[in-house]
Formats: sequence, C-alpha cells, structure tokens
Amino acid sequence: MNLKQWEKITEWPLTVLSVLFIGVYAWQILAEPTGVWNWSAEFVMNVMWAVFALDYVVSIALAPQKWEWFKHHLFDLAVVVLPVIRPLRVLRIISALNALHKTSGMALRGKIVMYVASSLIILLFVGSLAVLDAERYAPGASVKTFGDALWWTFVTITTVGYGDYTPVTAMGRVIAYALMLAGIGLIGTVTATLASWIVDEVNDDEAKETKITREQVERLNTRLDIIERKLDRINGSRITSDDVANRR
Amino acid sequence: MNLKQWEKITEWPLTVLSVLFIGVYAWQILAEPTGVWNWSAEFVMNVMWAVFALDYVVSIALAPQKWEWFKHHLFDLAVVVLPVIRPLRVLRIISALNALHKTSGMALRGKIVMYVASSLIILLFVGSLAVLDAERYAPGASVKTFGDALWWTFVTITTVGYGDYTPVTAMGRVIAYALMLAGIGLIGTVTATLASWIVDEVNDDEAKETKITREQVERLNTRLDIIERKLDRINGSRITSDDVANRR
Amino acid sequence: MNLKQWEKITEWPLTVLSVLFIGVYAWQILAEPTGVWNWSAEFVMNVMWAVFALDYVVSIALAPQKWEWFKHHLFDLAVVVLPVIRPLRVLRIISALNALHKTSGMALRGKIVMYVASSLIILLFVGSLAVLDAERYAPGASVKTFGDALWWTFVTITTVGYGDYTPVTAMGRVIAYALMLAGIGLIGTVTATLASWIVDEVNDDEAKETKITREQVERLNTRLDIIERKLDRINGSRITSDDVANRR
Amino acid sequence: MNLKQWEKITEWPLTVLSVLFIGVYAWQILAEPTGVWNWSAEFVMNVMWAVFALDYVVSIALAPQKWEWFKHHLFDLAVVVLPVIRPLRVLRIISALNALHKTSGMALRGKIVMYVASSLIILLFVGSLAVLDAERYAPGASVKTFGDALWWTFVTITTVGYGDYTPVTAMGRVIAYALMLAGIGLIGTVTATLASWIVDEVNDDEAKETKITREQVERLNTRLDIIERKLDRINGSRITSDDVANRR
Repeated sequence: MNLKQWEKITEWPLTVLSVLFIGVYAWQILAEPTGVWNWSAEFVMNVMWAVFALDYVVSIALAPQKWEWFKHHLFDLAVVVLPVIRPLRVLRIISALNALHKTSGMALRGKIVMYVASSLIILLFVGSLAVLDAERYAPGASVKTFGDALWWTFVTITTVGYGDYTPVTAMGRVIAYALMLAGIGLIGTVTATLASWIVDEVNDDEAKETKITREQVERLNTRLDIIERKLDRINGSRITSDDVANRR
Repeated sequence: MNLKQWEKITEWPLTVLSVLFIGVYAWQILAEPTGVWNWSAEFVMNVMWAVFALDYVVSIALAPQKWEWFKHHLFDLAVVVLPVIRPLRVLRIISALNALHKTSGMALRGKIVMYVASSLIILLFVGSLAVLDAERYAPGASVKTFGDALWWTFVTITTVGYGDYTPVTAMGRVIAYALMLAGIGLIGTVTATLASWIVDEVNDDEAKETKITREQVERLNTRLDIIERKLDRINGSRITSDDVANRR
Repeated sequence: MNLKQWEKITEWPLTVLSVLFIGVYAWQILAEPTGVWNWSAEFVMNVMWAVFALDYVVSIALAPQKWEWFKHHLFDLAVVVLPVIRPLRVLRIISALNALHKTSGMALRGKIVMYVASSLIILLFVGSLAVLDAERYAPGASVKTFGDALWWTFVTITTVGYGDYTPVTAMGRVIAYALMLAGIGLIGTVTATLASWIVDEVNDDEAKETKITREQVERLNTRLDIIERKLDRINGSRITSDDVANRR
Repeated sequence: MNLKQWEKITEWPLTVLSVLFIGVYAWQILAEPTGVWNWSAEFVMNVMWAVFALDYVVSIALAPQKWEWFKHHLFDLAVVVLPVIRPLRVLRIISALNALHKTSGMALRGKIVMYVASSLIILLFVGSLAVLDAERYAPGASVKTFGDALWWTFVTITTVGYGDYTPVTAMGRVIAYALMLAGIGLIGTVTATLASWIVDEVNDDEAKETKITREQVERLNTRLDIIERKLDRINGSRITSDDVANRR
C-alpha cells in the first residue's frame, strides 16, 4: 500500500475521530465528570490520541522521501505532539477542517466565505473550552463559566477587547495570543474577500471596453485567411504556416 | 396574481410599516409608557408583526417552487420568527434597508458608500435601543440610559472596546456579538472600497500605456481592408468573410 | 470678479488664518489665560471666525448657480456654523488641509501617504485639545492634562481602546465618535494603499508576459505597411486609408 | 575605498553587532545585574554604540554627494542618535532587519509574509523589553514582569487593547504609540497581502479568456510572414522592415 491510498482510506475515519475527540473534550470540561466517568473520558481521549500518533507514524513510514514529508508536515507533528499539554488538545479539531477542502466545485470566494465562517465557529467553540479549562479554578480568574469564556473569546477574536474578562494564567494568555492572531487573520480575510469582489465588479464594465478578447484576435486571423486565399488565387500555389516554421 | 406582482405591490407599504414598527418600538423603549399606552404600543406592534407574517405566508403560497423559495428566504423567515423575542424586534428594520436597493442609477462604489453609511446609522440606532431594552433593569448593568447605550454601541461597532460599559445579560451579549461582527464587516467594506478606488486610480495611467483598446484593433482591421481592396483590384473578384466562414 | 479668482486670492490667506486660529485656540486651552488675555484670545478668534463667515457669504454671492454651490459646499457651511459650539472650533483646521491638495506633482500613492500622515498628526493634536477642553473640569472626568488627552486620542484613533481614560461628557463623546470613525478611515486607507502597492508589484512581472503593448501593435502595423508597399509595386497605384474611410 | 565597498564589508559585522547589542540589552533588563556586571553591560553597549556612530561617520565621509546621502539616511541618523535615550536603544535591532533584504530569490508575497512574521516577533520581544525597562519601578505601574510586558505588547499591537495593563510613564506611552502604529501597519499588511492573493487567484481564470498573450501576437506575425512570402513570389523582390523604417 502506498501513502496516497493510506490517506484516502484514513481521511474520513480520522475526521470523524477528531470531531468525537472534541466532543469528549467538551463534555469533560462542561460537565466536569468525576470518578469513573472522568477516568473513562481521559482513557477514550488517550486511545484516540494514540490512533492519531499511529497515523502519523504509518504515514511517514509509507512516504517515499521521508525527510521531505517530515519537513512538509511539521504542522501535523505539532498537532500530534502538542495535545500532551491538556488545553492544546483542541488543536485536534484542525484535522476536522481538512474535510472542508473537499468543496472543490465552488468558486474561490464562495470557498473562502465558507472557510471563514466555519473556522470562526470552531475557533469560538474550542477557544472558549480551552480558556475555560485553563482559567476556571485559577486564583483571581474572571472567566469561570462557559458563557463568560465564549464572551471573552468573541471579544478577543474581533479585536474589540473590552477588558471586562481577561486571562490570568500563562496558558490562558497563550490561548489569547492565538485568538488575537486569528482575529487579525479574520479581519484580513473578510476585508480581502470584499476588496476582491468590489475590484472585480468595478472592473467588469471597464474591461468590456479596454481589454481585447481572443475572439477579436480570431477575427484578425480570419481577415488574414481571406487575404491568403486571394494571394493563392493569384499564385496558384500555397505556402503553409508549417513551411514557414520549418524554414526558420 | 403571481409572486412578482405581489412583491411589487407590497414593497413600499411593508417598508413604511417597518419604519413605523421601529418608531413605535423606539417610543416604547425611550418613553417607557405605562398602562393603556404601553398596552396600545404592544397591540400595534403585534398587529404589524401579524402583517409581516401574513406577507411571508402569501409569498410562499404564490411561489411556483415553494421549497426553492423557502431555502432562499431563510433570512426572511428569521426576520418574521425572531421578533417574538422582544429585543430582536429591531430586526424588522432590515426590511426597510431593501428600499436602498432601488438606487440603481448609481455606480457600484457610490452605492456601497450609501449602503455602509445608512446601515451604520440604522445599526447604531436599533443596536442602542435593543441593548437598552435588554440591560436597563438588569442587576449590575452599566448601560442605563440611551446615551450610554449609543456610546457602547459605537465603541463596539468600531471595535474600539473601551470596556467602560459592557453588557451583563445574555440578550445584551447576543446583541454585542451581532454588533462586533457588523463592525468587522464595516471595517472590511470601508477598506475594500478604498482599495478598489486606489487600485483603479493607479491603474488608470498605466492602463493607457499597456492595454490596447478596441480602437487600435479597429485600425488593424482598416489596414487589412485596404490590402484586400488592393488584392481585389488585381484579382478582379472578391472573397468575403462570409465565404470563408461558410467553407469552414 | 468671479468665484475662481476669489478662491485663488483668498486660498493662502485663509489657510494661514486657519493655522493661526488653531494656534490661538491651542494657547487658550493649554495656557488657560485669565482676565484680559482670555478676553483677547476670545476676541481674536471671533474676528477670525467672522472672516471665515464673510468668505462663505462672498463665495456664495459670486457663485453663478447658488443652489448648486450650496449643495456641494454643505461641509463648508458646517465648518462655518459649527464652531459656534466651542470644542468644534477645531474644525477650522480642516480648511488648512486644503493646502495639501496643491501637491499635484506627486504620484497618487505618495499623495495618500502624505495626506494620511498629516491628517493623523492634525487629528491627534486638535482631537486632544478638543477633548481636554470638553472634559477637563467635568465631574468624574479622567482626562485632565494634555498628556492624558493625547494618550486617549491615540488609543481611540488606532481602535486599541484600553479604557483607562474615557470621556464622560456629551461633547467628549461626540469628539470620540468622530475620532473612532477617523480611525476606521485611517486603518482602511493604510490597508488599501498597501494592497494597491502589492497588487501592482505582483502584477508587474505577470503583465510583462500577458499584456501586449502599443509597441507590439505598432510592429503589426509596420508589417502591414510592407505588405501594402509590395502590393503597390504590383498595382502601380495606391489606395490610402483616407480613401477607405471616405468610401464607407 | 568607496561607499559601496564599505557597505559590503560592514554589513554582516554590523548585523551581528546589532543582535549582540539586543542580547546584552535584554540580559541587562531581564537579569538586572548589579555592580560590576551592570557596569560591564553598560560599557559593552557604549562601545557597540560607538562602533555604530563610527560607521555612520565613515559612510557619510565616503559618500560622493554628502547632502544627498544625509537626506536619504535620516532614519540611520535617528537610529544612531536616539539610543542615547535608554529605552530607545532597542531601535538598534532595526539594522538587523536589513539582513532580511537578502532573500532576493523569493516571490514578493513570500517575502512580505516572512518580513511581517519576523518584524512581529522582533517588535514583540524588543517592545516588551523597552516597556518593562520604562515602567517596572514607576509608581502606580501595572507592567512589572516580562510576562506582563509581553502580554501588554501583544494586546496593543493587535489593537485588542483590554486595558488590564496600561503604561503610566511618558516613555511607556511613547513605546505604546509606536506599537499601535505598528499594529495598524501589521493589520494593513496582512490584509493587503491576502487581498492581493485573492485578486490574483480570481483573476487567473478570467485572464485566460480576456487577455491576449505575446504568443498570440506572434501567431499574427507568422501569418503576415506567409503573406509577405507569397507577395515576394509574385514580385520576385523583397522590401524589408529596415527599408520601411529608413523611408519614413
């Protein structure tokens, strides 16, 4: 079996597993199970994590140029290794986003709008879970419920930044750094997509006047065709473009 | 009667009704009428809401492909159903915005500027009303007057976010989420329109040098015309482009 | 004398007067003169204001189509009328900005960079003066020195919005509204100018390959010239493009 | 020796020296050495500063047009003179950024991404050091550790602005002004690069239809070539393009 086949087989199972992983993670944080339940959640997540690690190992083993594959999949390595740190487990969801790549029939701007919308929803959800997990029981913390965590995440990602809730732990701040950068990216992508759309709409009318199309060039060729035929009638013989190309 | 005719007949009355609706809503929130006055305001708004619901029902009944119409008018459904939740009544104003679509004579960028300016004013006004209604009597609330509400709405929509006033109720936060997203859209649209304008202005000079126009192609055709006439004088006969097209 | 001549004569004196006006205004706010000094400053500003009002009246009197001129100079009217409200006096500085229009030799992007930089400096200076004037002695105010005012103005116009200083008076909030909108415009203009520059740079290389220039079309014309001469040698006569145009 | 040679020789040593300078500066601020260690750090930094000043003097001495060179290197002058003010020493790092210019093989957008990423990391690091140095022992200061300083710098440069930490000293505010402007530039560059990318991707498909390439013009020329050859066969002689150019 080669790498392509392995990727094709494992793609959907791994996406489903990522979503399940986040489901268990969310349940563990929001329901705060104790005793055997908590232990079960931990166990299930560890098993899932082992599956992800296994996929990474098998993939690199199947890759023909292992060093090349390693260099181009540093991000996958991070997604496998970083979840050892508990609040970074949410990074697993990024694998789920890959499923969106399958929307190949859409126009680019439609794809971007879908990507931004789904990334925003996922970021808001997992960002809130992560910050709640990191902050909840820290002394002096302001983020103590999922409602507060969602509010803080939204306020951060849109760069509004009221400051009524702010993280106090080192992990909470790391999550904030990621969300702020995501916010810059969000504003940038929204603006850029709008700009591209407006530039296109405005140029459309103008383009009709100034850009000459292949059709117009075709008309010039037809004219030359007529002239050649007339010359052939005089000459009685024909020199083809192949002849010209050969003689060069 | 078909759907097009119904839409044409109802368009202006519904727009006027939307504005009236917001007027009554604003009066109810700002003047805080009691007793029979408050009851009257509620009654008038309920009647208006029934008219909007009726329009939705008639529209879907007249639509030839009901399922298609339903899918493309989910937003209209939201505007009809959501105002049952009191502070979301302001969504009715969105129908009034449709009237702006009628400015068909303007250039695209002019339209966008007008749209952004009027959306901003409407959002500031109805956002302030909604947050005032949601927060005013909540324990621990900071937004207690229309002045404070307008200030908070402005600070939120521009993503400045001082944090001197912040919503404390769930409904206030929902309104804030909408305003923050609107703010991202506002910044994006302003930037994109400016970018489109600058790109156009800069390209204008350059375009004069590098883009060849239809006029120039026309000149090439005229030259070919002369050559053909000269050949005709030699040949004494004429092959037309139609001949060439036919023989292909 | 017509309007054009009047504008040409008064342009520089009015610009100088605007700058002087802001100078006196700044001195009055920062030095807080008392007694005869304060009275003198008020008197000088009132005289200057009368000159601006006179210019408006003379301009409209000289305009051939008064209603047209009125509609296109609503902003000038605002600049004349609004300074009656004390902190809005700073609006006078906007006239001074007109002098920047004279930089006609520069490329568009260079002009925009200069405009943004000078507008930013002016907005920061006059915004700080205005908010200091409005807030300084208000009960519960946090902006009490020019340093604080400048800090608050900067934090507001960049949409950072810490919230350590916030206006508490109605006039302070009006100034804040203007600065926030200016901030959106500032971010938008910076981004749009950068976008235009990057789009241009990236397109430059590509353009060399795909866009055909006037020079290339000229070469096609030269080729046709040669063919025509050859045909003339056969025919012994010449049909000119004028002939073709005439016969059409 | 001329200026070009001097610049080539000194470029890498000066870049290394800049990095070392920041290293010593960071060590002095973070480790807060006392006695002989602090004195040594100060001494080493003063020696380094003297080297930078010497480079400036030698460069201007070697410049053929000294006034021109002076006008175009005002920024270099600032980088040499300003570090006399202690927290502005960090400006030295800007010289280190010059090394990035050497990435000449990359495409423009790749370069911009690399530039933005490295500028962001450097700004976060040196901004945090500078604000920590300025604020740490000020009465009423909130920024007291490197962690807090980094947090504040990040919150400022992304224009989130929670306001949980704010500078209280004049120098702290000056650093904040620079970071806020850098933030506007950061958002602008990210957005502009994305916009350029999207505009390009969207235009690519369209371009294939409407833009005519040099190849197509070449085909027209080949056609004219054939026609000329045919005419030559009739005429028995050849008029070249040089002839046409000469006769004009």
